[in-house]
Amino acid sequence: MKPDATREDIDRVVHVIETLGFRAHSLPGEGRTAIGITGNKGSVDPAHFENLSGVADAIRVTKPYKLISKDLRPEQSVIKVGNASIGGGSLAVIAGPCAIESEEQVLAVAKSVAESGAQFFRGGAFKPRTSPYAFQGMGEDGLKILSGVRDRYGLNIVTEAMDERGIDLVEKYGDCIQIGARNMQNFSLLKYAGQTRKPILLKRGLSATLDELLLAAEYIMAEGNYDVILCERGIRTFVDHARNTLDLSIVPALQRLSHLPVIVDPSHGTGHNYMVTPMARAGVAAGADGLIVEVHSQPERALCDGAQALTPKQYLELVDQVRRIHEVVSTGKPALQASI
Amino acid sequence: MKPDATREDIDRVVHVIETLGFRAHSLPGEGRTAIGITGNKGSVDPAHFENLSGVADAIRVTKPYKLISKDLRPEQSVIKVGNASIGGGSLAVIAGPCAIESEEQVLAVAKSVAESGAQFFRGGAFKPRTSPYAFQGMGEDGLKILSGVRDRYGLNIVTEAMDERGIDLVEKYGDCIQIGARNMQNFSLLKYAGQTRKPILLKRGLSATLDELLLAAEYIMAEGNYDVILCERGIRTFVDHARNTLDLSIVPALQRLSHLPVIVDPSHGTGHNYMVTPMARAGVAAGADGLIVEVHSQPERALCDGAQALTPKQYLELVDQVRRIHEVVSTGKPALQASI
Amino acid sequence: MKPDATREDIDRVVHVIETLGFRAHSLPGEGRTAIGITGNKGSVDPAHFENLSGVADAIRVTKPYKLISKDLRPEQSVIKVGNASIGGGSLAVIAGPCAIESEEQVLAVAKSVAESGAQFFRGGAFKPRTSPYAFQGMGEDGLKILSGVRDRYGLNIVTEAMDERGIDLVEKYGDCIQIGARNMQNFSLLKYAGQTRKPILLKRGLSATLDELLLAAEYIMAEGNYDVILCERGIRTFVDHARNTLDLSIVPALQRLSHLPVIVDPSHGTGHNYMVTPMARAGVAAGADGLIVEVHSQPERALCDGAQALTPKQYLELVDQVRRIHEVVSTGKPALQASI
Amino acid sequence: MKPDATREDIDRVVHVIETLGFRAHSLPGEGRTAIGITGNKGSVDPAHFENLSGVADAIRVTKPYKLISKDLRPEQSVIKVGNASIGGGSLAVIAGPCAIESEEQVLAVAKSVAESGAQFFRGGAFKPRTSPYAFQGMGEDGLKILSGVRDRYGLNIVTEAMDERGIDLVEKYGDCIQIGARNMQNFSLLKYAGQTRKPILLKRGLSATLDELLLAAEYIMAEGNYDVILCERGIRTFVDHARNTLDLSIVPALQRLSHLPVIVDPSHGTGHNYMVTPMARAGVAAGADGLIVEVHSQPERALCDGAQALTPKQYLELVDQVRRIHEVVSTGKPALQASI
Repeated sequence: MKPDATREDIDRVVHVIETLGFRAHSLPGEGRTAIGITGNKGSVDPAHFENLSGVADAIRVTKPYKLISKDLRPEQSVIKVGNASIGGGSLAVIAGPCAIESEEQVLAVAKSVAESGAQFFRGGAFKPRTSPYAFQGMGEDGLKILSGVRDRYGLNIVTEAMDERGIDLVEKYGDCIQIGARNMQNFSLLKYAGQTRKPILLKRGLSATLDELLLAAEYIMAEGNYDVILCERGIRTFVDHARNTLDLSIVPALQRLSHLPVIVDPSHGTGHNYMVTPMARAGVAAGADGLIVEVHSQPERALCDGAQALTPKQYLELVDQVRRIHEVVSTGKPALQASI
Repeated sequence: MKPDATREDIDRVVHVIETLGFRAHSLPGEGRTAIGITGNKGSVDPAHFENLSGVADAIRVTKPYKLISKDLRPEQSVIKVGNASIGGGSLAVIAGPCAIESEEQVLAVAKSVAESGAQFFRGGAFKPRTSPYAFQGMGEDGLKILSGVRDRYGLNIVTEAMDERGIDLVEKYGDCIQIGARNMQNFSLLKYAGQTRKPILLKRGLSATLDELLLAAEYIMAEGNYDVILCERGIRTFVDHARNTLDLSIVPALQRLSHLPVIVDPSHGTGHNYMVTPMARAGVAAGADGLIVEVHSQPERALCDGAQALTPKQYLELVDQVRRIHEVVSTGKPALQASI
Repeated sequence: MKPDATREDIDRVVHVIETLGFRAHSLPGEGRTAIGITGNKGSVDPAHFENLSGVADAIRVTKPYKLISKDLRPEQSVIKVGNASIGGGSLAVIAGPCAIESEEQVLAVAKSVAESGAQFFRGGAFKPRTSPYAFQGMGEDGLKILSGVRDRYGLNIVTEAMDERGIDLVEKYGDCIQIGARNMQNFSLLKYAGQTRKPILLKRGLSATLDELLLAAEYIMAEGNYDVILCERGIRTFVDHARNTLDLSIVPALQRLSHLPVIVDPSHGTGHNYMVTPMARAGVAAGADGLIVEVHSQPERALCDGAQALTPKQYLELVDQVRRIHEVVSTGKPALQASI
Repeated sequence: MKPDATREDIDRVVHVIETLGFRAHSLPGEGRTAIGITGNKGSVDPAHFENLSGVADAIRVTKPYKLISKDLRPEQSVIKVGNASIGGGSLAVIAGPCAIESEEQVLAVAKSVAESGAQFFRGGAFKPRTSPYAFQGMGEDGLKILSGVRDRYGLNIVTEAMDERGIDLVEKYGDCIQIGARNMQNFSLLKYAGQTRKPILLKRGLSATLDELLLAAEYIMAEGNYDVILCERGIRTFVDHARNTLDLSIVPALQRLSHLPVIVDPSHGTGHNYMVTPMARAGVAAGADGLIVEVHSQPERALCDGAQALTPKQYLELVDQVRRIHEVVSTGKPALQASI
């Protein structure tokens, strides 16, 4: 749409698209609104739209993904999460323990997270565990504890859901619904997540290609939820010195194709405490819009993934370093892009 | 339990286990019944059981998996699927199109499958597709067509479910519920599948280790459904000459640890028509208990995965060859095992 | 060339090619001789050749590989190794210990190998070891022991060379020079191997694609040595139940593109004794032209790779089984190919 | 040895080690000299040494690698390369074209490299190419051009050798011998490189584990050349958005075990121009001691790997950014390490 298109202009275009039997996706940006069309088989004649009032251009997106694409929306998306946002120039830090274990544990960590200036708190109430006999999370009780963290520290809550019931609960208690790596191609869950109004943090699967990650996001967006944050969390390779191989090259690759923000998880991405800070720095240096990091007040007693959790002290040092690196990248970036 | 343990002996042991707050899993075998215990934290004192009537031995299974293990049940499981069975010496052939597209298409293929002597028919009514804009399957209508195949040809129906509603429907119309590779660690779905009474065909995830596959089966069994068939369908590697890399070495590795039957999918495992027959032969030669193969009457017109589907003629030749190889393996196996 | 082309016709074409500044590669087959051209930049005008006496056709091979290609030589190559041959319908079995350790050890194994009807003996005198402090092989003394095996049992010797000096020595004492997986892209060594007159057994690198393997063979052939045998020996993946992942799908893929024989190494390909026989059967079932297998009279005392070596008894059972499977494949194959 | 050990003390210990039939490796550090022992089978009695004059301690290194290990030499190695050095706090930048094509091309790039303040120039005279028909490098003529770059710009020359003859030539014309990824386990070449007196830049193989890379360095050092620089250049995975997957987590992992400097190659590590700067930043942020980057005055005309080469302008921006990130890391590091 043109920058000066009115609400009525937009509604008229949406109406025409729906009359043709397709689905219209209205994505407002800073300067202008883009309207995506899905549900079509084959190409749609641009003549239907190009003479409508307020329409700037009708572009055919030929890639397998449409709504995630910069072809549709060239400017970067800024996703509202609770009272803060992810994407668009600032560096988002999401921190907290792997699993919610008790109120004391959570509040101790939350204090450090709030002190660091981070705006997002993470912690799992539903844990996808390889073994059925491992600790599966506190469930709704854990979500209530997380809700208390928001009340007390003003942190926005990011937490995982593993099924439809979980999505309903996280929608009720949290601010951002995480879809874990193992569910990245759980297409039924993606569709259900596309029907909520809370933003989705979508983690890359252990063996997902860039296309598969983007199409998983497209599954969510095709249902009408356009607030998706992509997350690199390490892939599975032959490497044995780290739990996963953090593939930071996907950060610039995603940003080249998609307007969605991209964050990095150096905790699951490495699995070792001593690697978390170097790889967090590397993720921000690669251009990530944020980090999701595990912090535990007593890593050695954690019920889940203690080996990779940072102490609050280590975490505060990490935040200091990545902020300074983010400044270098923010200053450097425009010049670089201009020169390519 | 001892070979001569009575129904009452078994019930008493189950009762004692449940009184202790644990879950009892009764797995009857040819000669004797094994009873697994789950739900315990830490080890359980064998003194609780070893003096009960009919108890032969109380063994501690120290591996992360219990119910799938040969430690618990040394003899191979034979899984009843409709009016036939998988595992235990015979070679199971499951064949049919990738997706159910129409009744004509399905009946044409079913005729060949029945002629080949196979006892199982496959075909997807719910299709997990990488793109939200690709054909997603016929849904319940497709299941009704499959049900017609059973009525007409006496073939037992194996078909995929992607969510709880799908499991309910496949339980109603089909004989065996397939859990696809992308859902192998969809733990909520595994638990739900563990509550049905239909056998589960569990496909290995694209980057799943042997332990992860066995623990996914354990998730199903821990809920009380012990009828699980494992399926190797190719893993994701750097290789570019095939769609996936069929990892046949997992066949003897699984059989060494688990009593569950193992089958091989040479169609998804390779993605190329010309590789399907050689790799089907290889799978049977490696010791697999069966095959699941894609057949299409007009592969060039298939809505999904046509490049890998066999023609009915190719399929009949495949069956002839793998039967002869299975004979060699069956004859050779006992001698080999004795000598190791 | 036409089937009735004379020696003079062939020489004239070679002469014309060389006059143009290119290199001519004459590959005689059963019915006719193909002459490959390398050293050209860009395409060569077929007009130079097509009117010469005895020329049947001038075909442009547009793939990156030429001499290995079926475009140049549609019929399968049969490679002469000592007094036997590999490729062309029969099943070659190459067996022996990983490393040559002593004369007694070698003769004990050689006896079993000869009894099994195999025509080739393997054993390393130069061992590529990950650590500089591990046993590096007996060197020339080991080659002399191997030479004794040929004298005593009539077995043809296949053994590895790691550098130019090694190639010279194996050329002197052995019948077939093995280039190991770690040297598959040691291009200087490949060129040197291309200048010997002994056949080369070229093992696939741990992370080599099909194209890279074929181009490594092309390096050897471009120097004038056309006797190359390709060997799948397992690739490196995330899998942890086997030392490597035997990628049997490369067998039909190579045979589709190349006239060179393809063999399989189930010993290095799995790293576990109990997997060797199942995967040897699978390799032959996939269509391999032969096997290379580790046998040791006392696997538990082997200086190298004992865990994967078969006992002589296990080896004899393996040979019996793979011969029967090869019969099934040989009978089945033509019919299958006709129907595709 | 003690900090005040004399030359004579050291010589005496070396003499004792050699008298015992072992090999002594004297590694002088800033404060003290360590002396490694190799060539032993089993452990060596410390009583032989601990009472000799100047000996501080006799430590048994039980890992498979000895000379690379921090157990032997806790402080980081600083490797002298020509008139500059790599390791030890400063950031080394090695830049230049992939292949030496002509004097004009090389001098144009060298000017930018010198202007950037880098002290090292790269460029290949011997090119390991997948195809025998691709441009194989200018050979000795290329080395002479590189030698001219040193004379004119004072840059130290880093260039690859693929065989023994190549090592002799690079030793003559260059300042640092690069061993490429494909030769990382060419053990004969490693041993030969261990006998030169020029430092070795050892690139990680495409599927090499951390242990294999360290043991390849150990091969070189065991021959007496202790000046080895390790280089991460991307590994082979299923990923298709980049040519290789740059595994930056190996940087902290190597630094934890070894005293050798570690550099990163973001050009081969990604294969795409637009990824090079982000991943160079990430490499430095992960803690690398340097970078090796491809720069070409006319990337679109490069005979080799043009797609990944930076323009001189992009390169200068990269250097500016990574210097600023290196400052953050250098300041941040000690604090962090203290707190773990």
